[in-house]
Amino acid sequence: MTPERYAKIRQVLDRRQPDLRVLTDGVHKAQNLSAILRTCDAAGVMNLHMVTQPGQRTGIWKRSAGGSARWVKRHLHPDGSHATLALKQQGYRVYAANLSNKAVDYRTLDYTVPCVIVMGAEKTGVSAPVLALTDAEMTIPMMGMVESYNVSVATALILNEAQRQREQAGLYASPSRLSPTEYANTRFEWCHP
Amino acid sequence: MTPERYAKIRQVLDRRQPDLRVLTDGVHKAQNLSAILRTCDAAGVMNLHMVTQPGQRTGIWKRSAGGSARWVKRHLHPDGSHATLALKQQGYRVYAANLSNKAVDYRTLDYTVPCVIVMGAEKTGVSAPVLALTDAEMTIPMMGMVESYNVSVATALILNEAQRQREQAGLYASPSRLSPTEYANTRFEWCHP
Ligand SMILES: C[S@@+](CC[C@H](N)C(=O)[O-])C[C@H]1O[C@@H](n2cnc3c(N)ncnc32)[C@H](O)[C@@H]1O
Ligand SMILES: C[S@@+](CC[C@H](N)C(=O)[O-])C[C@H]1O[C@@H](n2cnc3c(N)ncnc32)[C@H](O)[C@@H]1O
Repeated sequence: MTPERYAKIRQVLDRRQPDLRVLTDGVHKAQNLSAILRTCDAAGVMNLHMVTQPGQRTGIWKRSAGGSARWVKRHLHPDGSHATLALKQQGYRVYAANLSNKAVDYRTLDYTVPCVIVMGAEKTGVSAPVLALTDAEMTIPMMGMVESYNVSVATALILNEAQRQREQAGLYASPSRLSPTEYANTRFEWCHP
Repeated sequence: MTPERYAKIRQVLDRRQPDLRVLTDGVHKAQNLSAILRTCDAAGVMNLHMVTQPGQRTGIWKRSAGGSARWVKRHLHPDGSHATLALKQQGYRVYAANLSNKAVDYRTLDYTVPCVIVMGAEKTGVSAPVLALTDAEMTIPMMGMVESYNVSVATALILNEAQRQREQAGLYASPSRLSPTEYANTRFEWCHP
């Protein structure tokens, strides 16, 4: 490993946000999941939780993911409520991106607290059992004829706002927000393929 | 047509931004172009200019586009410099999304003026002849290991910022920013499929 590569790994690791997560609830297209993975990496998100549909293939399209599969952990969950509840019990606030009239503008929520961003399936959106567990529903205002964004685009817009808020709050500044053990383990994994 | 549908068409038309355009320079994946088209609609962009690669198929994936093909005009161009120059001559400022060290943070540019946002090809980025004609190069800051966003995600992030600025400047408020003739023609097209 070159010194430049090592420096880059350290820099990215220093900015990782252990308490900002994404959960996809039934998103099943590999191309969308891959683009979401890549966007997670860009925002410093370390953990992507994927609630899978029965029989779903969970492979990542290498090209769409742009090599991000190595830098973001994927967690597969057969059950959306279980996954959501487990995160809630760890102290996460749950924000669901959902096109409903209960939803607030996504820019009004606070992403500097530990939180998980829930994204819905391509056709059916976030499932009812998961919605029942959320702390807030949020929507991205649209000006056009089409009712919704592509799910990977919607994820990117929300993560971008989260990144903006966390940048302002100094959460990307060193020292690392990881525990010493998690930092050491991740550095080891990243440096030794 | 129901009164609700007609009201929706009028509302969307009232918010259309004739002087905010997107030009894709060699983007060739149908799925990316479709997602870009859908994001244009969402931001009120009426015109998508596509510089095509020789032999490229220019079809839109209906599902990824989410029905946006009807609401955004596509213009095909065999030559990127010609297309860019023509827009410059109409008074457009040209902003290229490009990963270079000449690039400024995309949030520092002014999108309330007539402008065209240039997006580069999946592998090779914006072409040199088009870059030579741009007024500014811009980059979206990333915190991760992967060097670039998917092109449709990058387009969405930039259009979102443009939308935010134009909202603040009151450019989405009525009366319509279209000329009376363009307004009438577009309304006719949209109401009579
Ligand atoms: C293609 S949309 C699903 C549309 C589905 N027909 C519905 O009504 O939920 C896929 C997911 O992207 C997210 N999404 C898309 N556009 C959004 C918007 N404008 N605001 C909030 N979330 C959005 C939501 O998580 C949604 O479940
Ligand atoms: C996948 S990228 C191309 C990467 C290519 N290797 C390069 O170096 O240009 C496709 C296009 O998306 C846009 N893009 C992606 N990430 C970007 C970023 N962080 N800042 C600005 N534009 C970006 C640019 O227009 C780029 O040409």
